[in-house]
Amino acid sequence: MGERAVKAAVLVIGDEILSGRTQDLNIAQIARFLAPLGITLGEARVVSDDTTAIVDAVRALAARWDYVFTTGGIGPTHDDITADAIAAAFKRKIDVRADARAILEAQYAASGVELTPARLRMARIPDGASLIANPVTGAPGFQIENVFVMAGVPKICRGMLEDIAHRLEGGAVTHAVSVRLENAREGDLAEALGRIAEDHPDCSIGSYPWFEELPGGGLKRGVELVARGRDAAELSAIKARLQALG
Amino acid sequence: MGERAVKAAVLVIGDEILSGRTQDLNIAQIARFLAPLGITLGEARVVSDDTTAIVDAVRALAARWDYVFTTGGIGPTHDDITADAIAAAFKRKIDVRADARAILEAQYAASGVELTPARLRMARIPDGASLIANPVTGAPGFQIENVFVMAGVPKICRGMLEDIAHRLEGGAVTHAVSVRLENAREGDLAEALGRIAEDHPDCSIGSYPWFEELPGGGLKRGVELVARGRDAAELSAIKARLQALG
Repeated sequence: MGERAVKAAVLVIGDEILSGRTQDLNIAQIARFLAPLGITLGEARVVSDDTTAIVDAVRALAARWDYVFTTGGIGPTHDDITADAIAAAFKRKIDVRADARAILEAQYAASGVELTPARLRMARIPDGASLIANPVTGAPGFQIENVFVMAGVPKICRGMLEDIAHRLEGGAVTHAVSVRLENAREGDLAEALGRIAEDHPDCSIGSYPWFEELPGGGLKRGVELVARGRDAAELSAIKARLQALG
Repeated sequence: MGERAVKAAVLVIGDEILSGRTQDLNIAQIARFLAPLGITLGEARVVSDDTTAIVDAVRALAARWDYVFTTGGIGPTHDDITADAIAAAFKRKIDVRADARAILEAQYAASGVELTPARLRMARIPDGASLIANPVTGAPGFQIENVFVMAGVPKICRGMLEDIAHRLEGGAVTHAVSVRLENAREGDLAEALGRIAEDHPDCSIGSYPWFEELPGGGLKRGVELVARGRDAAELSAIKARLQALG
């Protein structure tokens, strides 16, 4: 808190980053997100989709830094082993958890897509972990002690950061308000959002498009707007203006 | 050589990467350069411009991996401490070296720019290190044992890679095949993908969802499946099974 230097590490998990097939964008994104919170990155690592590599890196980083943010490996396929590896690193049991399952059930029920056993793997959460909301696709991340486990897709990772900002103790405490607009498009909101941001230079305003599949195969879309800042009164004034955009 | 898996690590050095001010491009660039040589990245790290951080990381990575490639911190300014830190990591003396100085003198004489004491710092090379040619700006990198010290500017880093390619002993080249499935969802493919992965333990199979905005504002989605391995015949067999999932 206060003047203490708060330092964090990012752990990027994924063979696709180490092969050069995918360009990592999360290290820079997380660094830029943490800066206004008074938290700076002290180190970043990229490891492969390998349990031992993930366990060793998470233990080393969690012991060395105030916070650790991991990205990648929490999807439904066989190569998504991050959740189980994090559980192993903290010697926690892991299984499909009711709260996470409920989120997926609601998500897929709304879209008429079957919640297959594979998709249910995304509800595997270590004992004692707190969930991290995913405003884009629903499947949650989670937090154990000082480690935050997030998705690798940059847009989803960014959305999850918004949900955990209030849990971080940095140089300054920040609050967040969010407004979910249905059938809205970022391109239509950009100009008004820009004006609101200009009127509130001490707050950060984020815009996150989301998509929901409809039973007919159609798509429902919208935008989640998130404002962060230190002044709760200013934030509620911003929230009112954001809601007026709907 | 031959069938042995040759693995390397990248160590990115620089506060500007950790602050998010500069987007690292060298991890992916080095990975793509090494792949056809039969060398794959096993790990990457980003550390700050701090001697202890650099020394600890270089020692850990050099002991763990066949090769280590560092980028950044070999310029003329006070915060460029990589060369001295690498010398410290290997307990070598370091000073302005005649061969490196000659390169800089020729470079600056040709351009009519004064070789200031600051620029001369770029001629500081640890005892016993072999130089790495810099085709872009002249200032050389260097190699000590299995560690290659290169510039952070991606273009210069790329030029230095060309100079060291012939010094690297690669293993069996890893090949990749990819299949792009439109209108596919990871959750529906996961079970079949898992079986294919089980049938081919020597290959890695990755699943990467993608989304495309359509002109009308709609959304097109799909999954890109990527298989990597050393046996081309096995990979084409896998590719056929992946295509059959579409």
